[in-house]
Amino acid sequence: MNTRLSTAAIDTLRANALRFLAIDAVEAAQSGHPGMPMGMAEIAVALWTRHLKHDPATPEWADRDRFVLSNGHGSMLLYGLLHLSGYDLTLDDIKQFRQLDSRTAGHPEVGHTPGVETTTGPLGQGLANAVGMAMAEKLLAAEFNRPGHTVVDHRTWVFMGDGCLMEGISHEAASLAGVQRLSKLVCFWDDNRISIDGNVAGWFTDDTPARFRAYGWNVIEGVDGHDVEDVDRAIREAQANMDNDIGPTLICCLTTIGKGSPAKAGSAGVHGAPLGADEIAATRTALDWPHAPFEVPDEIRASFDARDRGEAARIEWQARFEAYRAAHPELAAEFSRRVRGDLPSSWRALAPALVRRADNEAATVATRKASQTAIERLARALPELLGGSADLTHSNLTDWPECGAVRADQFGRHINWGVREFGMAAALNGISLHGGYLPFGATFLVFSDYARNAIRMSALMRQRVVYVMTHDSIGLGEDGPTHQPVEHVPSLRLIPNLDVWRPCDAVETQAAWNAGITRRDGPALLALSRQALPHQARSEAQLAAIERGGYVLADAHDPQLIILATGSEVALAMAARDALTADGIGVRVVSMPCTNVFDRQDDAWKRSVLPGDIPRLAVEAAQPDLWWKYLAGAPRSAVVGIDHFGASAPAGALMQRFGFTAEAVTGAARALIEP
Amino acid sequence: MNTRLSTAAIDTLRANALRFLAIDAVEAAQSGHPGMPMGMAEIAVALWTRHLKHDPATPEWADRDRFVLSNGHGSMLLYGLLHLSGYDLTLDDIKQFRQLDSRTAGHPEVGHTPGVETTTGPLGQGLANAVGMAMAEKLLAAEFNRPGHTVVDHRTWVFMGDGCLMEGISHEAASLAGVQRLSKLVCFWDDNRISIDGNVAGWFTDDTPARFRAYGWNVIEGVDGHDVEDVDRAIREAQANMDNDIGPTLICCLTTIGKGSPAKAGSAGVHGAPLGADEIAATRTALDWPHAPFEVPDEIRASFDARDRGEAARIEWQARFEAYRAAHPELAAEFSRRVRGDLPSSWRALAPALVRRADNEAATVATRKASQTAIERLARALPELLGGSADLTHSNLTDWPECGAVRADQFGRHINWGVREFGMAAALNGISLHGGYLPFGATFLVFSDYARNAIRMSALMRQRVVYVMTHDSIGLGEDGPTHQPVEHVPSLRLIPNLDVWRPCDAVETQAAWNAGITRRDGPALLALSRQALPHQARSEAQLAAIERGGYVLADAHDPQLIILATGSEVALAMAARDALTADGIGVRVVSMPCTNVFDRQDDAWKRSVLPGDIPRLAVEAAQPDLWWKYLAGAPRSAVVGIDHFGASAPAGALMQRFGFTAEAVTGAARALIEP
Repeated sequence: MNTRLSTAAIDTLRANALRFLAIDAVEAAQSGHPGMPMGMAEIAVALWTRHLKHDPATPEWADRDRFVLSNGHGSMLLYGLLHLSGYDLTLDDIKQFRQLDSRTAGHPEVGHTPGVETTTGPLGQGLANAVGMAMAEKLLAAEFNRPGHTVVDHRTWVFMGDGCLMEGISHEAASLAGVQRLSKLVCFWDDNRISIDGNVAGWFTDDTPARFRAYGWNVIEGVDGHDVEDVDRAIREAQANMDNDIGPTLICCLTTIGKGSPAKAGSAGVHGAPLGADEIAATRTALDWPHAPFEVPDEIRASFDARDRGEAARIEWQARFEAYRAAHPELAAEFSRRVRGDLPSSWRALAPALVRRADNEAATVATRKASQTAIERLARALPELLGGSADLTHSNLTDWPECGAVRADQFGRHINWGVREFGMAAALNGISLHGGYLPFGATFLVFSDYARNAIRMSALMRQRVVYVMTHDSIGLGEDGPTHQPVEHVPSLRLIPNLDVWRPCDAVETQAAWNAGITRRDGPALLALSRQALPHQARSEAQLAAIERGGYVLADAHDPQLIILATGSEVALAMAARDALTADGIGVRVVSMPCTNVFDRQDDAWKRSVLPGDIPRLAVEAAQPDLWWKYLAGAPRSAVVGIDHFGASAPAGALMQRFGFTAEAVTGAARALIEP
Repeated sequence: MNTRLSTAAIDTLRANALRFLAIDAVEAAQSGHPGMPMGMAEIAVALWTRHLKHDPATPEWADRDRFVLSNGHGSMLLYGLLHLSGYDLTLDDIKQFRQLDSRTAGHPEVGHTPGVETTTGPLGQGLANAVGMAMAEKLLAAEFNRPGHTVVDHRTWVFMGDGCLMEGISHEAASLAGVQRLSKLVCFWDDNRISIDGNVAGWFTDDTPARFRAYGWNVIEGVDGHDVEDVDRAIREAQANMDNDIGPTLICCLTTIGKGSPAKAGSAGVHGAPLGADEIAATRTALDWPHAPFEVPDEIRASFDARDRGEAARIEWQARFEAYRAAHPELAAEFSRRVRGDLPSSWRALAPALVRRADNEAATVATRKASQTAIERLARALPELLGGSADLTHSNLTDWPECGAVRADQFGRHINWGVREFGMAAALNGISLHGGYLPFGATFLVFSDYARNAIRMSALMRQRVVYVMTHDSIGLGEDGPTHQPVEHVPSLRLIPNLDVWRPCDAVETQAAWNAGITRRDGPALLALSRQALPHQARSEAQLAAIERGGYVLADAHDPQLIILATGSEVALAMAARDALTADGIGVRVVSMPCTNVFDRQDDAWKRSVLPGDIPRLAVEAAQPDLWWKYLAGAPRSAVVGIDHFGASAPAGALMQRFGFTAEAVTGAARALIEP
């Protein structure tokens, strides 16, 4: 380091290094968002060089601080920080910004770039992810720390802009963080008064500090976002708030978007487009940055390098953890297992045993009730299971006898999320990303709409999150069409990497839960009935086959028809089969609880379940169009579904009205057999 | 009226009449939500008997106040009010609460029950609908009122509970109402401290009055929600706020859920379940209500009857309107047309002329740009067109030269919605429900997820709303998988009564816009490209056929293959056709811009477009599974689609990588022809 330079001068150079990496990468890509990195550069310097606890060589270190770029379009700021801090992200990677197969995608993607904690870009969700991370930290600390042994103690830091704050999910997330008193959560508001349409005065005039105080946050106002010392002072004040455990902190940083660009700073034009060669030259002059594109002087590079400091911190923690292991060997082993995301060794035997147990019980219950039974049994075996409901606990049936509540000062395992479906789902992603817990959340299936993009993000980020979505289809009954999800099961099936289960009885419900827990690379969503569904008899082979997503539930010597059904309609298919069998017509019934998993089976399995030369009838109380995928190739085929909204009436009356009766299914079946 | 009774005594009886109608109807149905009607009964009495401007005999009166029950589960409160006020809703209707085909559905449904202004139940959306209604009122007043002639001057009143306030959309809606200074919007917060999971202290500790003050609302705190006089006083204070035009008003009413039930008042148990016979008897005793179920004493009934008062108010308005008509005959005629929702008489000729004009221009442009051209032309002919973007105006391309902005004190036609997709969509529903405008809103297609349930509500409520969703599919390019809607077009197609258009060029874009505007019974959603798409040549008959949703764009004498394509992939289909034609293989190309509309065509049309005996190939850069519906029955078939998330890279590189090239489509076509 050039010793002639003052701290302030070094900080200025650091900030400008971040600015120009962003400027140059966006210019090279001819695509991207320079405005935010240029506007938040000093805030980043203050946090990353003075406070952030991380080890660039060990990005997976369990007790690292979590950093979330909720305004993910400013990805180049994060890539610049990761590169200069010493993560495995090279200058060549940065030169490949936004190019095919590069590690520097347009928005930060977790699992794709070392040091990226969550995939952001869809505004507001990063903040909600961070709330989940801070909840996980707090709960894990309560569960594992012991007197004299603090092995969990880290912070969650968030960068966010006006866009995040306008989104509704920011309300859900901030309100939740307040009520849960997440004191180790610190958010930096990039208050630059510009959004894509221009100066926000015309569409965003909230008193944001007052709003966050109303949520129970500590709000630090009036910070100069371009003064590293002022930001540093605010961070230290936030740390003091943490020590007093008085809630999350919002640091309001006054900034200028595109700071440094003579012509474009402070304007929407710098948000999401390259500066252009002339303006870049002008900015180089204005900021006195004589270096070539992508060139960072060695001394600045060295001043950012966090590897030594990070390694020392991690080694210090490792020593503490070894002391913990010595004092609490079982806890330490459990902690290690939990943060690895491994299931207990008992799981391999337990999972099929639970399915067999449900089979033995042969209960006729609503699958939401069967899910509650499954949760209770799973929770006893899996201490990492952590979940709850968006204010429908006694409808979704998510609690269990010894669960205990999660509150600001209570450390149970059941979360009353409040009426916050989207915030819940995004926080579940945060919990899963943090590690240590296997999270689930619940609401009515129809309100999966509210949470939809966060469910998509679970799938995109390959997170093990289980969604418990009850009150499926018109079987919901009297609450009517606003609450009856007729299109939701098929529409959710279309989200890549999401496994949608619609079990037909308690046995399939247990199997669906098992699949969601066993899966490590994506979410599962369970669509569960309000109404009771009868038990279906199965052989051992059939019990094992459920996990294939589609299997033969009942067969005939020489079937003349295959009926495919899911959920509440499997019983109708079985009844139709009985009626036709009585007439000497052989029918195979295929239960298809998860089309997504069935699609991943090999061709031999698929052909064995759905041989090509037999007519097929699909039955599902949902929008029917997707079923044609499973009917293609059959000599004749039809779907019994519902291609319109439901109505308000008792479930039985609706099933009758809309054609979901054994008689109607039998009739549709006959029409295919006797054309 | 029994003259011995004081006003206070009458109000108590009125409130109890509402309570028992709810209690008795829920008990008869053995399903429903008595807690809210019992808790908000006095608030309802204050508003409905002293302030609400409405004429029960003419529910469609343009200048009526709008009443929105955002906590729609309390539907029996609204039904009781409508019945007792004199709407066409009988006691028999109420006895049929939640039964099949009754007019008293589980949640209020607009178009189903006279006097219901919007369908509510999905929490928070009623508030956002109301914001749209109040915006429409304010804009319509600015557009049509003239000095000495006030023909638009009504209020929007909202009931809402903690559930609405926890939802993220309440933030978007309230923030928007503040920035737009919607002074005639008055909301009553049913502050009963109970949500479904119990006392909200464990999950909802916002300082709601402070929060709403942060949005620029007038907040009236500490109102006793069980004292009609106190509520009345607050309403009068809100009216004074209106006169001063200082923003929307929140009236915070302290209430007890299930008020009157000795055992259940103040508990979550009374929220969503019948009280049960014993508790009903106890409540009758406690409230001194000796009447039989569903019996309302005549004098109470008479005291509620709003027909005379309502008719007088409406006649007074009618007289004012006649004076307005005399002074401003053209304005009056235009006003009447606008509130009827009729299009101008010129529309019938204009619509096809605009399609022909686009055809003549033969432009190669992005369909988002073609949409902007369409908007500009439509806006000149249709003064009711009112729309904007959720902070992506210059990406969605929603503005036009003379549009002018909608601000608190500016009355243009373009709305900067801010980053509030869900709030925008629900407000669009409110604008449409209010009447006078034909609203549209825009965001990136991927963020239709954020707005999804409001889009569903547009469809359920059969509202003419146009959604302009740009940056379709992987053609979006560098922003990457978080921003690339691969499953959205098919998943939106599954929403009943929503028409999803994915036009292939400027001509189809204009036709799609025309269809959305012509349609009166539901919404249209346009999925538009970021990238330029080539013009396709069409005959007059083909131009006219676009409105059928699917049609033959190019044919062959004896086609050996049909390629179905939409949007950006139509050009690939045409290129593949060229290649195959050069090899002597005849190919038909079917452009299918709207499968939903195609589905509504008669069988003859469908067969003429898709004859059964020719192999079919579908090509769409989206999740492919839905296409099998249109391939069923063909001798051989395949889909070129994308069943996984996209990636961050320039669009051309992604199209190449994921197989959306003329060569790949040609190859897939050959495989079907030469199996």
